[in-house]
Amino acid sequence: MTDKIWIATLKKAVILLSGGLDSATTLAIARSEGFACHCLSLDYGQRHSSELGAAQRVAAALGASEHRTIKLALDAFGGSALTDKNIAVPTQPADGIPITYVPARNTIMLSLALAWAEVLESRHIFIGANAVDYSGYPDCRPEYLEAFEKMANLATKSAIEGHAIHIRAPLVALPKADIIRLGVSLGVDYSLTVSCYQADQNGTACGRCDSCRLRHQGFVSAGISDPTHYLHPDSSE
Amino acid sequence: MTDKIWIATLKKAVILLSGGLDSATTLAIARSEGFACHCLSLDYGQRHSSELGAAQRVAAALGASEHRTIKLALDAFGGSALTDKNIAVPTQPADGIPITYVPARNTIMLSLALAWAEVLESRHIFIGANAVDYSGYPDCRPEYLEAFEKMANLATKSAIEGHAIHIRAPLVALPKADIIRLGVSLGVDYSLTVSCYQADQNGTACGRCDSCRLRHQGFVSAGISDPTHYLHPDSSE
Repeated sequence: MTDKIWIATLKKAVILLSGGLDSATTLAIARSEGFACHCLSLDYGQRHSSELGAAQRVAAALGASEHRTIKLALDAFGGSALTDKNIAVPTQPADGIPITYVPARNTIMLSLALAWAEVLESRHIFIGANAVDYSGYPDCRPEYLEAFEKMANLATKSAIEGHAIHIRAPLVALPKADIIRLGVSLGVDYSLTVSCYQADQNGTACGRCDSCRLRHQGFVSAGISDPTHYLHPDSSE
Repeated sequence: MTDKIWIATLKKAVILLSGGLDSATTLAIARSEGFACHCLSLDYGQRHSSELGAAQRVAAALGASEHRTIKLALDAFGGSALTDKNIAVPTQPADGIPITYVPARNTIMLSLALAWAEVLESRHIFIGANAVDYSGYPDCRPEYLEAFEKMANLATKSAIEGHAIHIRAPLVALPKADIIRLGVSLGVDYSLTVSCYQADQNGTACGRCDSCRLRHQGFVSAGISDPTHYLHPDSSE
């Protein structure tokens, strides 16, 4: 009986889990706040599909209540180096928003999380968006996330019945080194995570793309050993 | 050469096309405004999947440039009579928002349209949302659509580079009878469309659900013969 009451009162959260460093840390934060975590990954035809296996391992390692992967063929639209194999992943920082930007990806993922949250009767959606050490994607900025939250609170039956939805992006203002320090303190095993935009099927990182560069510099700045296996380790220095 | 210039300058729009009465009318409006129409349907595990065939026929009949159907298993989440076969479609009007409401459906569909619009370099997304003769779904109301537009203009690379996105819902304030009159004047063949929440594979409508009721009353009010084939024609009177 006691168990049942505990389960009924535990707050549920939906966590967008890509399998990368930021979303793994976000899951650890949600767990540390006592949420029952329902993790959602999107199989959208991404080049680095090994992140999906990483998401599954991260969810299990961090005690998620559940992990689901939903399939959606965004490669049918293309328009990004991550969803169109004919566009190469850049190995040098870009001026402006790089070609690895996937049109409306976070909007699509947050929308799916919103749907699931409503069915679960959860009021909390966590996303690992970061607007400090990031690639300049528009849908990682606080003003975007606030606008999504406002829209979500007009969109759903549960919200208009008085149960407000909260979009939580606990990493949005943190430098990568702080994210890593926080994650380590919460027990995140970063060797399970895959950040690289062109990781191979084993999760080996290129060491050259924007995502590898930001990740590796984060470990260096944090003074923590980087457990990532890079194909070109010198390039990420 | 003239042809090429014409093609290059023709404005593109993404049209959310369910295959129902409202979205067909919306496509006709966008065509009448001179848009090259790229129609998007969502195969989301809906009970009334015959609407997808209707969408294809409507797109062809109304001269769409393109029609794509994207698959996304929302029935994995459930929570609606349209995505969970264990929940019956009601045959009586509900108090409040009925169980045919699909959590976050319009948000998901608009997000996908936003992604495609960005890839197409289109600034116009049309949706057949209506908040007059409707089922009370929160994601059909003007305030929701305005909030989505605001969010979209912070979400995308093209928007922050100065190309504003416009969410167009030309039917939002029209009674059903006016929608039907307008559609007829624009050449919409409503016999091609499927509105029923539990239409069979041939598109035969139940005549009893909320959607059948609103549709049939619209034809009666407009003084236009309803071309729909109802299984229970008396119930929709």
